[in-house]
Amino acid sequence: MSFSVLVRSFCLVLSLIVASEQAIAEELLVEKQRFTTTNFKTFNGQTIPKIEAGWEAYGKLNAAKDNAILITHYFSGNSHAAGKYSPEDTQAGYWDSIIGPGKAIDTNQFYVISIDTLANLSFHDPNVITTGPASTNPATGKPYGLSFPVVTIRDFVNLQKQVLESLGITKLHAVVGASMGSMQALDWAVAYPNQVPRMLSIIGSGHSDAWTVTSLEHWATPIKLDSNWKQGEYYTHQSPKEGLIASLMMITQYATHPEFINASTPNHTALQKEPLQDILQGYAAVDWLRARAAARAEVSDANHLLYLVRASQSFMAGFDKNFDEKLSKIKAKSLFIPASNDLLLMPYQSNRIHQKLVQLGKDSSLVTLSPDKPSLGHLDGLVNIKLHAKTIREFLASEAP
Amino acid sequence: MSFSVLVRSFCLVLSLIVASEQAIAEELLVEKQRFTTTNFKTFNGQTIPKIEAGWEAYGKLNAAKDNAILITHYFSGNSHAAGKYSPEDTQAGYWDSIIGPGKAIDTNQFYVISIDTLANLSFHDPNVITTGPASTNPATGKPYGLSFPVVTIRDFVNLQKQVLESLGITKLHAVVGASMGSMQALDWAVAYPNQVPRMLSIIGSGHSDAWTVTSLEHWATPIKLDSNWKQGEYYTHQSPKEGLIASLMMITQYATHPEFINASTPNHTALQKEPLQDILQGYAAVDWLRARAAARAEVSDANHLLYLVRASQSFMAGFDKNFDEKLSKIKAKSLFIPASNDLLLMPYQSNRIHQKLVQLGKDSSLVTLSPDKPSLGHLDGLVNIKLHAKTIREFLASEAP
Repeated sequence: MSFSVLVRSFCLVLSLIVASEQAIAEELLVEKQRFTTTNFKTFNGQTIPKIEAGWEAYGKLNAAKDNAILITHYFSGNSHAAGKYSPEDTQAGYWDSIIGPGKAIDTNQFYVISIDTLANLSFHDPNVITTGPASTNPATGKPYGLSFPVVTIRDFVNLQKQVLESLGITKLHAVVGASMGSMQALDWAVAYPNQVPRMLSIIGSGHSDAWTVTSLEHWATPIKLDSNWKQGEYYTHQSPKEGLIASLMMITQYATHPEFINASTPNHTALQKEPLQDILQGYAAVDWLRARAAARAEVSDANHLLYLVRASQSFMAGFDKNFDEKLSKIKAKSLFIPASNDLLLMPYQSNRIHQKLVQLGKDSSLVTLSPDKPSLGHLDGLVNIKLHAKTIREFLASEAP
Repeated sequence: MSFSVLVRSFCLVLSLIVASEQAIAEELLVEKQRFTTTNFKTFNGQTIPKIEAGWEAYGKLNAAKDNAILITHYFSGNSHAAGKYSPEDTQAGYWDSIIGPGKAIDTNQFYVISIDTLANLSFHDPNVITTGPASTNPATGKPYGLSFPVVTIRDFVNLQKQVLESLGITKLHAVVGASMGSMQALDWAVAYPNQVPRMLSIIGSGHSDAWTVTSLEHWATPIKLDSNWKQGEYYTHQSPKEGLIASLMMITQYATHPEFINASTPNHTALQKEPLQDILQGYAAVDWLRARAAARAEVSDANHLLYLVRASQSFMAGFDKNFDEKLSKIKAKSLFIPASNDLLLMPYQSNRIHQKLVQLGKDSSLVTLSPDKPSLGHLDGLVNIKLHAKTIREFLASEAP
């Protein structure tokens, strides 16, 4: 190889790297938008005078406005599904591995949009815009606290619908959600069947059974036990921080899996000296879990957590006691992706709703996510979703009503 | 058949029924005994001036005193492993299905004994005799509270050893335990290898890994968050009842399984009206779980729960950082029975210690308990143990060192 060829090759590689870095820098930069609405009617018949909701979009809405994919977020997530807010951002949106130019949910083709839910957990995150019990009640000039209406998955859906309509989007290409986001995705397909040709439920469920409702209750309990909670009236005092951290520790634990916790704490020993000597001393592994939870607590609101627990507990796709009758209204082609090691919404949940849809004659399929060790359990649906990138790409490209 | 033959047959059947009922009545009546010791040295080097411990025995100790089987109990259990205290008792001991005359652990052949642990959870159960933080410290005349030393699985073992020695038993036929009882059983085999020819670990583990330690921590948290806990000094005031109930709700949930919870709450609906209208209203399924926990809370002590959490967290068979070296001292033939749907001590825990023993050249086997639906999860090891009655009977009859 001559020197000039070598130089040209080197320069070609270099230019590719630069171009690729520019592409990455361009592709990832996103901006939070703000949507406002008034007199929002909730599922339980109450009215919220004013709602503000953050949203993000990736890709371009086409002229026909029929290339939108709605991403509905999970319990402790928000509308930051992909990209970065600035080139310096160390962390991209949670599904950046499957959303972007050329990725499974291809932003060269689709206009991908996500919207912060009502009562979003991360009320104090500067990148989240939400309305919930920590928001100011215009009627009193004070935070709502527990006077904020109980909100449901259906309310999240209806707010999303308003945001989409404000952009002129009347029919989606697909709705895709993980965990609590899967509840919204499925409810979209039931509530607005003509607007949802494809529904993708990841680590999801069809309704909250007694197991789910009781296990979610444990997340609420530490907050209510914290003497600073004061029936939700803590906004002018000290917040129930210890209860909130305890709740987030539990959520982190059961959203993961022994393989992950054990791999993350390689120096753990049951014979650690301090806890063997003093009942008030704790384990390093507990400190590790607490540190993760405490960081999340910094941007979270305890009442918002209670409202999200309730929204998740009260989920039943279609929101009608005639469950099968409601489900029969679905027109969407459905795809369920449970995670094999999920301890939170175990695979039986996805299997159950998938089987029901099949029985009702619907076009439904299911593939299981089984990552290599160490597994993250429920969170495999976020962290290891790329393992099913091809499945998702093909599902989005497939014919649908 | 002549009339007289018919009458004789009828009388024979009747007498058999009566005899069988008498046998049942006799076989099941048990009495709690009391053992007392002084200046008990704990694993962490402290001294407990006086200990009282309840114990029960079924069957007869033979002249050679070599037919004793020790049953070590689980977290919320006690020495009432089989039988009834009176003919009116509605509930027999927890393993009555496998302990008794002619049963898998045959009391016609073996002297079966069980002993209340230190810091037993059910301090207020009249049939439990235990010493722990709720006991009176003879030095002060007041309850120990958190001045009670941290106690470990090894301390439970050493107390059991004293009880056995007081009866002249120097070598066991076997030690058998479920869950926290399995920890004691395995530690017996490591600590006193010459006295344990057979070790049966049911729904157990070999050491508390980071997952186990962190998940146990969630059981302690609600108690510590209850403002009535007051660092354990609540004996002259109101007790941390709400924290204790919350803890017991969580224990009940994760000791069972979705199949059990869902089957137990057939009228559950996510669309229950009250919780949809009011964030402070709860679900009937949660009330059901709470009622079970509240009943257990009546006889439980919150500090005792914290001490049992710590005893379980600090478990490592052999209690030495040289885990393999300690395990290599085992002489016992071992049998592990994990439950396939166990969410508390998942089957990987039994598998891991079983594999390690096999690698160390030990005689170890493992069979999995997989009951028909609905599964009780971890509690299958108590409620459905009879499915492996034959395995247990054969294991106890087998040759061992």
